[in-house]
Amino acid sequence: MARFLKKSKQEIGRSPDELIFKGDQKIDQVQLRIIDFDSTNLSEDALKTVSDIVAFQHKNTVTWLNVDGLHNTAVMLEITKVFDLDTLVMAEVLNTDARPRMIEYDNCDLITLKMLSLDEATGKTHVENLSIILTENVLISFQENRGDVFEPVRERIRKQKKRIRNGGTDYLTFALLDIVVDNYLYVISVLGEKIETLEENLLLNPSEKVIYQINDYKRELNFLRKIVKPAKEMIFSITKADSDFITESTDVHFKELQDNISHANDAADYYREILSDQLNIYHTTISSKLNDIIKFLTVFSVIFIPLTFIAGIYGTNFEYVPELSFKYSYFIMWIVMIIIAIGMLLFFKRKKWF
Amino acid sequence: MARFLKKSKQEIGRSPDELIFKGDQKIDQVQLRIIDFDSTNLSEDALKTVSDIVAFQHKNTVTWLNVDGLHNTAVMLEITKVFDLDTLVMAEVLNTDARPRMIEYDNCDLITLKMLSLDEATGKTHVENLSIILTENVLISFQENRGDVFEPVRERIRKQKKRIRNGGTDYLTFALLDIVVDNYLYVISVLGEKIETLEENLLLNPSEKVIYQINDYKRELNFLRKIVKPAKEMIFSITKADSDFITESTDVHFKELQDNISHANDAADYYREILSDQLNIYHTTISSKLNDIIKFLTVFSVIFIPLTFIAGIYGTNFEYVPELSFKYSYFIMWIVMIIIAIGMLLFFKRKKWF
Amino acid sequence: MARFLKKSKQEIGRSPDELIFKGDQKIDQVQLRIIDFDSTNLSEDALKTVSDIVAFQHKNTVTWLNVDGLHNTAVMLEITKVFDLDTLVMAEVLNTDARPRMIEYDNCDLITLKMLSLDEATGKTHVENLSIILTENVLISFQENRGDVFEPVRERIRKQKKRIRNGGTDYLTFALLDIVVDNYLYVISVLGEKIETLEENLLLNPSEKVIYQINDYKRELNFLRKIVKPAKEMIFSITKADSDFITESTDVHFKELQDNISHANDAADYYREILSDQLNIYHTTISSKLNDIIKFLTVFSVIFIPLTFIAGIYGTNFEYVPELSFKYSYFIMWIVMIIIAIGMLLFFKRKKWF
Amino acid sequence: MARFLKKSKQEIGRSPDELIFKGDQKIDQVQLRIIDFDSTNLSEDALKTVSDIVAFQHKNTVTWLNVDGLHNTAVMLEITKVFDLDTLVMAEVLNTDARPRMIEYDNCDLITLKMLSLDEATGKTHVENLSIILTENVLISFQENRGDVFEPVRERIRKQKKRIRNGGTDYLTFALLDIVVDNYLYVISVLGEKIETLEENLLLNPSEKVIYQINDYKRELNFLRKIVKPAKEMIFSITKADSDFITESTDVHFKELQDNISHANDAADYYREILSDQLNIYHTTISSKLNDIIKFLTVFSVIFIPLTFIAGIYGTNFEYVPELSFKYSYFIMWIVMIIIAIGMLLFFKRKKWF
Amino acid sequence: MARFLKKSKQEIGRSPDELIFKGDQKIDQVQLRIIDFDSTNLSEDALKTVSDIVAFQHKNTVTWLNVDGLHNTAVMLEITKVFDLDTLVMAEVLNTDARPRMIEYDNCDLITLKMLSLDEATGKTHVENLSIILTENVLISFQENRGDVFEPVRERIRKQKKRIRNGGTDYLTFALLDIVVDNYLYVISVLGEKIETLEENLLLNPSEKVIYQINDYKRELNFLRKIVKPAKEMIFSITKADSDFITESTDVHFKELQDNISHANDAADYYREILSDQLNIYHTTISSKLNDIIKFLTVFSVIFIPLTFIAGIYGTNFEYVPELSFKYSYFIMWIVMIIIAIGMLLFFKRKKWF
Repeated sequence: MARFLKKSKQEIGRSPDELIFKGDQKIDQVQLRIIDFDSTNLSEDALKTVSDIVAFQHKNTVTWLNVDGLHNTAVMLEITKVFDLDTLVMAEVLNTDARPRMIEYDNCDLITLKMLSLDEATGKTHVENLSIILTENVLISFQENRGDVFEPVRERIRKQKKRIRNGGTDYLTFALLDIVVDNYLYVISVLGEKIETLEENLLLNPSEKVIYQINDYKRELNFLRKIVKPAKEMIFSITKADSDFITESTDVHFKELQDNISHANDAADYYREILSDQLNIYHTTISSKLNDIIKFLTVFSVIFIPLTFIAGIYGTNFEYVPELSFKYSYFIMWIVMIIIAIGMLLFFKRKKWF
Repeated sequence: MARFLKKSKQEIGRSPDELIFKGDQKIDQVQLRIIDFDSTNLSEDALKTVSDIVAFQHKNTVTWLNVDGLHNTAVMLEITKVFDLDTLVMAEVLNTDARPRMIEYDNCDLITLKMLSLDEATGKTHVENLSIILTENVLISFQENRGDVFEPVRERIRKQKKRIRNGGTDYLTFALLDIVVDNYLYVISVLGEKIETLEENLLLNPSEKVIYQINDYKRELNFLRKIVKPAKEMIFSITKADSDFITESTDVHFKELQDNISHANDAADYYREILSDQLNIYHTTISSKLNDIIKFLTVFSVIFIPLTFIAGIYGTNFEYVPELSFKYSYFIMWIVMIIIAIGMLLFFKRKKWF
Repeated sequence: MARFLKKSKQEIGRSPDELIFKGDQKIDQVQLRIIDFDSTNLSEDALKTVSDIVAFQHKNTVTWLNVDGLHNTAVMLEITKVFDLDTLVMAEVLNTDARPRMIEYDNCDLITLKMLSLDEATGKTHVENLSIILTENVLISFQENRGDVFEPVRERIRKQKKRIRNGGTDYLTFALLDIVVDNYLYVISVLGEKIETLEENLLLNPSEKVIYQINDYKRELNFLRKIVKPAKEMIFSITKADSDFITESTDVHFKELQDNISHANDAADYYREILSDQLNIYHTTISSKLNDIIKFLTVFSVIFIPLTFIAGIYGTNFEYVPELSFKYSYFIMWIVMIIIAIGMLLFFKRKKWF
Repeated sequence: MARFLKKSKQEIGRSPDELIFKGDQKIDQVQLRIIDFDSTNLSEDALKTVSDIVAFQHKNTVTWLNVDGLHNTAVMLEITKVFDLDTLVMAEVLNTDARPRMIEYDNCDLITLKMLSLDEATGKTHVENLSIILTENVLISFQENRGDVFEPVRERIRKQKKRIRNGGTDYLTFALLDIVVDNYLYVISVLGEKIETLEENLLLNPSEKVIYQINDYKRELNFLRKIVKPAKEMIFSITKADSDFITESTDVHFKELQDNISHANDAADYYREILSDQLNIYHTTISSKLNDIIKFLTVFSVIFIPLTFIAGIYGTNFEYVPELSFKYSYFIMWIVMIIIAIGMLLFFKRKKWF
Repeated sequence: MARFLKKSKQEIGRSPDELIFKGDQKIDQVQLRIIDFDSTNLSEDALKTVSDIVAFQHKNTVTWLNVDGLHNTAVMLEITKVFDLDTLVMAEVLNTDARPRMIEYDNCDLITLKMLSLDEATGKTHVENLSIILTENVLISFQENRGDVFEPVRERIRKQKKRIRNGGTDYLTFALLDIVVDNYLYVISVLGEKIETLEENLLLNPSEKVIYQINDYKRELNFLRKIVKPAKEMIFSITKADSDFITESTDVHFKELQDNISHANDAADYYREILSDQLNIYHTTISSKLNDIIKFLTVFSVIFIPLTFIAGIYGTNFEYVPELSFKYSYFIMWIVMIIIAIGMLLFFKRKKWF
C-alpha cells in the first residue's frame, strides 16, 4: 500500500504553475488514446504525438483523450498548448499527491481523485491518481499507469449505447467517475467479505495471528476511508459547483453517484465498527482463557500446599515427636490429607472457581 | 443476516440504465396485485400480465400496483413501457443493493429503502429492498419477496377509512413508509427488550456466553443502525425535495414520519450505549473475580511458605542441630508456626486483602 | 425506570388518526380541571363532562383545560369535537411513546414532551408524557397521571401575578414548559449530587459495590440524556416554527427556556464524563491493588524458594554428604540463608518492587 | 470547586420575574462603585444609595455602575426602578446558576457569564457569575463578590487611554469581557503548565499518586471546559445578535474576543488529550512493571522447582534407594542440578523472557 | 517543542492597542528586507531604518517589507506610522501567542498563523508566529526569527516568473501562505514516515521503548493538529471574507491552498489513527507474551506439585510406613511419578494450554 502522504523538501515554494511530476514513473512511454463520437459517428485511435489530435478537435463531437503516464513533461506541455489550457491546470494534473478536488478554471474544469483497483492475483489494492480535464467538447483523462479500467465505457461507446452516445462530456465524466466509485465499492466489498469470514474463525480458533489480521484489515480500512471521504466531498461539490460544463441533464446521474459514494463511505464505517467489536471479542476470549489457567493453578496449588506442609512436619528429625511412634499415624495422616483436599474442593466449588 | 455490501467485479462499468437484477431470486413468479380507488369506488385484483393494467390507468383514481419479485426482467421492461418510465428508473429499482434514496425524475419520483421484518419463529430479521415509483395517479411498489406487510394499508383502503380513500398517491406513500418505519421501531424494540433482559442476567451470572450475546446484539444493532440512518436521511430529504407529486397536505404526516424515524435512530443509539456499559460491567465482574482468586492464592501460599521452610530446616540431616534433641522442640515449633500464621493473617487483614 | 422504546406488532399499520391509547392506565378516572382568566377575572373549576366547557370557551379570555388520564377514548373524542380539532391531533396526544415534537396543524399547535418527576421517597424518577394543544384562546394540557406539578402556575394565576394574567396562551405554554425544564434540571441536579458524593467514597473505599453504583448512575444518566436531547431540539424548534399562536412578546421567555434546557443538557454531559473518569479511577485503584498483592507474593516466594531448596539439599539421605558431619554446618547454613535473604531484599529494593 | 449544577425543588415553577437570589452571600454589604467619563471628563465615586446615581445619569457620558454582592433584593429592585428596567432582567441577574447567555430586552441587553479567577495562595479556581446590563449610555456590572478583577480597566479609564475614553458602553463591555477571557486563558495556562510538568515525573517515577493527580487535573479541565464552551457560544452570539447597543466600530474587538475564547477552548481540548495520553503511559508503565515482576517470579520458581523436587526424592526414607549408598551421589546430584539450572536459563534466554 | 499556551497574569486587562512583545527575543537586531517589483522592474534592499522605505512606497508597484524580529517596539511603532496603520494592528502582530486569525481593518487586512519548520539536524520542529499585513500595494510580513523560509518566493520574483511578477499583494500573500502550508505537509510527512517505520519494528521487537516512541509521536501529532486545524479555519475564512485587498483572480489559488491544508489535516488524522492502532498491537503483543509466561509457569508448577508432594510423603519419619520397607517401592514411586507427569501433559495438551 502506498504511503499516505509524501512531501519532499524540494517541493516547498515552487510556483503553482511549474510542471514537475513528483510521482514514480509507472509506465515506459506516455500513451495517448482518443475516441471521438457523437450519436452517429465514432472514430477511435492511438495518437503518436499530441498535435495529431487537431484532426479531431473543433468538430461538433465529444472528444475523449486518454493519457496514460505523466512523466513526460514535454507531452504535457504540448497538451496545454493544443487545448489552450493554463499551465496551472497541468501543474495540478502532475501533482498526483494532492487531495481529491474539483477546480473550475476560466475555460475548463479539473477533477482529480484517487482510483483504486484490486490486483486479484496478489490481493493488493493499487492506488492511482486520476485527473479529468473537462471542456465543452473535450474530455482529457490522465492516468499514471496504462490500465484498462475504463474499457467498459469504451465498449458502451462502441456498442452505440444510446445514452452515452447522445450525452456530452459531462455524461462521459459521470461514466468515468461511476467506474471509479464502483471500484471503491468493489474493493471495500472484497475486504468486507474477508472481515466477515474472519469473524467465524475468531470464535473457533482465537490464535495470535488473528490480531495481526484484524490490524491489517483495520489499517487497510483506514487507508480506504481516507481515500473515500475526500472523494465523497469532491463528488458532492461537483453538483453544487454550478459549472459551465456540467449540464442539468446529468443531475440525476451525479445524484446517483453521490448515493453510491455515500454507500461506500457507510460500508467502510460499518466494517470499521465490526473490526473494533472483533478486537473486543478477541481480547475477551484471551483474557477468559488466562482466567481459566490462573484458576486452575490456584486450585491445584492451594490443595497441595497444606498437604506438603503436613508431610514436611513429619519429615522433621526432632527426637521427641510423639505422633511418629504411634502405629497408625501414617494412615491417619493420609486420612487427614484426603479430608483437607475434599474440603478444599468443596470450598472452591462453592466459590464457583471451577 | 444479509451481508452489508455486495459488489461483484462484473457490475463495474455497466450503463446506468441496464436492467439487470443482481439480488437473489426469492420468489418463484413475479406477482402483480392492483388496487384502484377513490373516495367512493374500489376495485382490487391480481394481474396476470402487466398490460391488463390498462383497464385501470388513466382514470381519475389512485392506482396502486404492487410487484412482488424482481427477477423477471421482461416484466420489469413491460412496466417501464406501460407507464412510460425511463429505463433508468427501473434499473434503480432492480439495484437492490443501493443506499436508501429519493430521486426525482421528469415524470415520476423514486423512493427506495430497506424494509425490515422480524421472523417471529426464528427471531431473525429479514431485510428486503422496497422501491416506490410515484406519479400523479399511480404508485408502483416493488418488493423482493411476497409479503403481507402492507396488508394493514389494504385493509384501511377496503374499510373506506376516510383519510386514505380521500388522499392521493402521496398519502399512500406516507402510509407505506409509515409501516416500514413502524417495523424499524418494532424490530429495535424487540432487540431492546432482549438487551434489557440481558442486563439482569449479567449481574447474577456473568458466564462467558454473555459476552457472545452482547457481541451478537451489538452486531445486530450496528446493522440496524446502518439501515435506519440512511433511511432517516432519505425521509428528511422527501419534504425538502419540493417534488411535484407530494402535496403540502401530507406535510404533517411526513413530519410525523421524521419524528418516528428519529425516534428509531435515538433508540438504536441508546441501546448501543447500554451494550457498551454491559460490556464494561462484564469485564469488571470478571476481573474482580480474578482478583479474588489471586488474592486467595497469595494469602494461602504466603502463610504456608515460611511454615514449610521451618519444617524443612528441621528435616535436615546435620549431625549437630542442637534444637533436635531438646525435648519440647517439636511443640515449640508448632507454637512458632501458629504465631507466624496468625501474624500473617493479621497483616493481610490490615492490608485489607481479604 | 420505564423501558426506552415500546412498540407492539399490533400497532404497525394503523391509520394515523385512530384514537388508541397504548400506554398503561395510571389513574382511575379522567379528570378535567379548568382555569379561565384574563387580567381582571378568574374562574376555576373541575368539570364533570367535556361539554360543560362551553360555558367558558368563546369568551375573550385564556382558557386552560388540564386533562389527567388518557385512557378514556370517549372523553378524548368529545374534546376533539368540542374544540373542533382534527382527530390526527388527538391520536398524537394518545401516542405517549412518541418522540418530543412540535407539530403545527391548521387550527392549533401540538407540543409533546416527556415530563420527569422525582419521587422523593423512593428516589426513583417517573416519566410521563405531556401534550399541550394550543390555540388562540385555549390551551389544553394532557397528563397521564394526576399530578400537582403545575400547581405553582395555578398559584401564580390565582395570586394575580401580572405577567401570567396579562399573557396569552403562549405565555402559559412557556410557564408550563418552564416547569418541565426546571424539573429536568432538578432531577439531573439530584443525580449529580449523588455522583459527586460517590467520588469521595471512591478513593477511600473502592469496594465492588461502587462499580454497580457507577453503572446505575450511568444508565440513569443515559436515560435522562435521551429524554433531554430531543426535548431540547423541540424547544429550539418552537421559536423557529413561526407559529400563529406564539407571539413575539414571549420570544425572550422561550430564549430563556432554550438556555435552561441547554444547561440541563450540558450538565448531563458533564456528569457523564465524571462517571467515565470515576470508572477509570476505580479500575486503576483495583489494578494497582492487584499489583501490590502480586508483588508481595513474588517477593515473599522468591526469598523462601532458595532457602527451602537448601534445606531440602541437606534433608537428603545420601550416605556421603560431607557437610552433614561438620560440626558448625547447621549454623553456617543459617548464616548463608540469612545472607541470601538480605541479598534478595536488597535486589528487590533496587528494583523498586516494594 | 463549586458544584456544576444546583437546582432546589423550591425554585421550580417560580415566576420568571421574581427577584430571589439563590446563590451564597459572599460579601457583607452590597457595594456600588461608579465611574462616569467621556473623552475629556472623568468622575469616580462609591455610592451609598442607588438614588445617588441620578446625578450621573442622563448626561451625555458613559456611566459604569459596578455592583458587588447580589444578596440585597431591595437594592436590586431600586436599580431596576432608577434605570427603568424590566424586573425580568434583574431576575436573570440574580439567577447566578444559569448558563452564559446574551438576552436582548426592549431597552437593554443582558450578558451573563462565569468569571474565573485563580487564588494564587491556594491554587484553587474561584467561579463567580458576572452580569452586564448594557444600554446606550449606561453599563451596570454585577459581581457576586468584591473583586479587583476589573481594576486594570479602571486604570485605563483614569489614565486617559484614548480608545476606552472615546468608546461607548459597547467598547467598555468588550474591555470587561476581554479581562474575563484573559482570565480563562490564564487559568488554563496555569493548569496546562502543571500538566506538562507532570509528564516528566510520569516517566521517571510512576507512583500511584500520579493517577490521582491526573484525575484531579482531568476533573478540573472538564469543569473549565464546561465553563468556557457556553461562554464561547455566548460571545459568538453577541456579534450575530445585531443589538442596538453594540455598534459596528467594536466589531474588530469582538472578533478578537472570539479568537481568544476559541484559543482557550482549543487549549482545554489540547490538554485534555495530553491527559488521556498520560493515563495511557501510566497504565503501560505499570503493566510493564507487573510483567517484569511476573517474569522474574516465573523464571525463579521454574528454576528451583525441579531442583527442590530432586532433593525431595533423595530425602525419602525408602529402605532400598540404590543411589543413596553410592559414594559420589551427592556430588552428582549437585552437578545434575547445576546443569538443569543452566539449561533452564538458556531456555528462558531463547524465549527472551529476561 | 514550545508550550501550547502561555498567558501571564501581567497581560490581563491590557489595552488591545498596547505594543508589548510577550514572546522570547530570538534574534539580536530587527532586520528589514524590502523587495519592490512590478512586471518589469525590481529593486531589492536591506533597510537600516523604517523611514528609508518612503523611497519605495506610493509607487504603483508591489512593495514587500519583511521584518525579522519583533522585540524592538520602537521599530514597530515607526512601521505603524509610516504605513498609517492602527496601533491595534501592530499590537496583534506582537501578540505571538494568539490563535491563527484573519482580521479586516479599515485600511488593511491582518493574517497571522503559526509557521512550522523542521530542523533537519536535531529533528525538532520549530514553531514561529507569522503575521502578514496586507494593503493594496504593500505587504508586510513579520517573523520572529531570521529565516530563509521565504527565499523560494524571492527567487521566483527575481527570476521574473510571470505569475508572481504580474500578481498583486494578494498573489504574494498566497505564495507566502503556500510555503507555510507546504511546510506543514512536509513536517507531517516526515513524522508520518517515522510512524510507518515504527510499525515494522513493532511486530519484530516490541520493546518497552516503543511505547515511549508512540507516545512521543502522538504528542507531537497532537501539537501539529492543534496548529493545523485553526490555520485551516483561517484559510477557509480568507476566501469567505470578501476582503478589499484579495481579488477574485486569486480565488483559484486560495482554493488550492484550502485543499492543501485539508490534506495536511487529513494526514494528521490518519496518522493519529495509525498510532492508536499501534498502541493496540503493542498492548496485545505484550499481554500475549505475559499469557505465554503465565501458562508456562502454571504447566510447570502443576506438574511438579504432586510429584514433590509424593516425595514429601515418603520423607516422613513415621515408624510404621509399610511402603518404605518394600524393596521396589522406590522404583514404583518413580513410575507413578512419570505416569502422573505424562497424564498432566496430556491434560494440558487437550486444554490447548501449550
